Amino acid sequence: MTARIISGKEVSAQIYAELGARIASFRERYGIVPHLTVVLVGDDPSSQSYVRMKSEKCRELGLGSTVIRMDALTPEGEVLAAIDALDRDEGVHGVLVQLPLPGHIRETRVLQAVDPRKDVDGFHPVNVGRMVMGDPDVLLPCTPHGIQQMLVRSGVRIEGSHVVIVGRSNIVGKPLANILVQKRPGANATVTVCHTRTQDLGAITRTADILVAAAGSPRAITADMVGAGAVVVDVGSNRVEDPTAPKGYRFVGDVDFDAVKEVASAITPVPGGVGPMTVCMLMWNTVEAAWNRLGR
Amino acid sequence: MTARIISGKEVSAQIYAELGARIASFRERYGIVPHLTVVLVGDDPSSQSYVRMKSEKCRELGLGSTVIRMDALTPEGEVLAAIDALDRDEGVHGVLVQLPLPGHIRETRVLQAVDPRKDVDGFHPVNVGRMVMGDPDVLLPCTPHGIQQMLVRSGVRIEGSHVVIVGRSNIVGKPLANILVQKRPGANATVTVCHTRTQDLGAITRTADILVAAAGSPRAITADMVGAGAVVVDVGSNRVEDPTAPKGYRFVGDVDFDAVKEVASAITPVPGGVGPMTVCMLMWNTVEAAWNRLGR
Repeated sequence: MTARIISGKEVSAQIYAELGARIASFRERYGIVPHLTVVLVGDDPSSQSYVRMKSEKCRELGLGSTVIRMDALTPEGEVLAAIDALDRDEGVHGVLVQLPLPGHIRETRVLQAVDPRKDVDGFHPVNVGRMVMGDPDVLLPCTPHGIQQMLVRSGVRIEGSHVVIVGRSNIVGKPLANILVQKRPGANATVTVCHTRTQDLGAITRTADILVAAAGSPRAITADMVGAGAVVVDVGSNRVEDPTAPKGYRFVGDVDFDAVKEVASAITPVPGGVGPMTVCMLMWNTVEAAWNRLGR
Repeated sequence: MTARIISGKEVSAQIYAELGARIASFRERYGIVPHLTVVLVGDDPSSQSYVRMKSEKCRELGLGSTVIRMDALTPEGEVLAAIDALDRDEGVHGVLVQLPLPGHIRETRVLQAVDPRKDVDGFHPVNVGRMVMGDPDVLLPCTPHGIQQMLVRSGVRIEGSHVVIVGRSNIVGKPLANILVQKRPGANATVTVCHTRTQDLGAITRTADILVAAAGSPRAITADMVGAGAVVVDVGSNRVEDPTAPKGYRFVGDVDFDAVKEVASAITPVPGGVGPMTVCMLMWNTVEAAWNRLGR
């Protein structure tokens, strides 16, 4: 039996519909248009394309958006000053600093400069700390929150399950573990975090009810590492050479999809799985930040 | 073969000796005596006894200490004002608010009021966040940090091991998981967090190389739940009735010590295991906070 495909496109479309209704009601009832400002330092092509995607999505949804472009050689102090101005700008609800930053700029300094109430990436340490401590009102980091939403809305039972996460990044693995272990609906899982130093990885991944691959290694999760009937979430997006592809390369996940889908009960594809959820949750956070400002 | 006993008394004595030398050198070279101020609201007998223990330890080590006692009915605003004054007091290096607080005072408000640089409990969300993100300079919460130190200094290899933690409190389970999963020496473990909603707990605990019991449930970890040769850390301290004890009660851990010590390779006792480490790491953090102030 082949696994059911969990589509991030479908789940995100559902969330976008909900957000659209909330955005319309904000406008009508309070005269407010939630506004996201992205700070982009330098001219990394991937970053530029991500930022473009975010701006387009804002436009589609009826959110305001601005991109502040700064030269790759901009001194750290100027970047911090720009963020400070955004923190104090009442018309801006969400502030996102596109990563990675040029090498001379300290990422931690910059991330800490964003007002936690406008931190739509969920990367400010005070928000990370509140998330770990179980604060229900915090802005959650987009990719792990998107994974949680995708599972819940696809009818996957997280409570009481054993979630095994392969990868311990600050963007996915660690926050996801902290989100799913909380004592609340949509979480309440037993959580294991594996990584490069894990011994006998397969023995552990095979015990997972829900296996999350976020190792950044193409097709590292093979069928023999997946227990029968497990739900598999593929966070990877690895560029691999492919002479048959129009551009000479294509993106594959961390999971050997074709083989694993014959073992798993459900699986997220790449592309069209976790990817669309990340931008979606950024929009969610922008709306949420505006809502919080109303002082509910 | 009976398990080796890992003594928190012995390990903490070793750390106290190191701290004592550092404190003496602070005094001689910089004329500084690290100072801990504890805020105690109300008259809970256990809290009073904990605070007394902390003050005595400061005196023994040559650290300065003050206890600010406030009435159980003190309004939240007055507690916050007292903390604010301590944050601005140059003579105070560490500020600790003894928990639990009376019901009318919001714990999160109070913990966030402490200057993160003086947060010797490691409970400020910004410190929790920095810990999760792997910042090497953060003040770590005392009990999990004490467990890490106890293991490392007893020659237990954490790197590459599978650590299973039973319990997900903000004081022990969650921070310990986040500390031990980091990519650095003395950590780098595969980490699983179990709790009340975990299914087939024994099947998971039996896979642990290092099993940490922090569930707050007397003798919940029985011998059949422990793999042969595992290292067992007992964080529990549960008061149980015992007519044969002088006071009519005594404290037992979360581990069925007598049976588990026949299966494990090493085990921490209760009392004399994790307990002494917690106060010890509070002293460590007070010295560390003073050191950080010197602007190393």
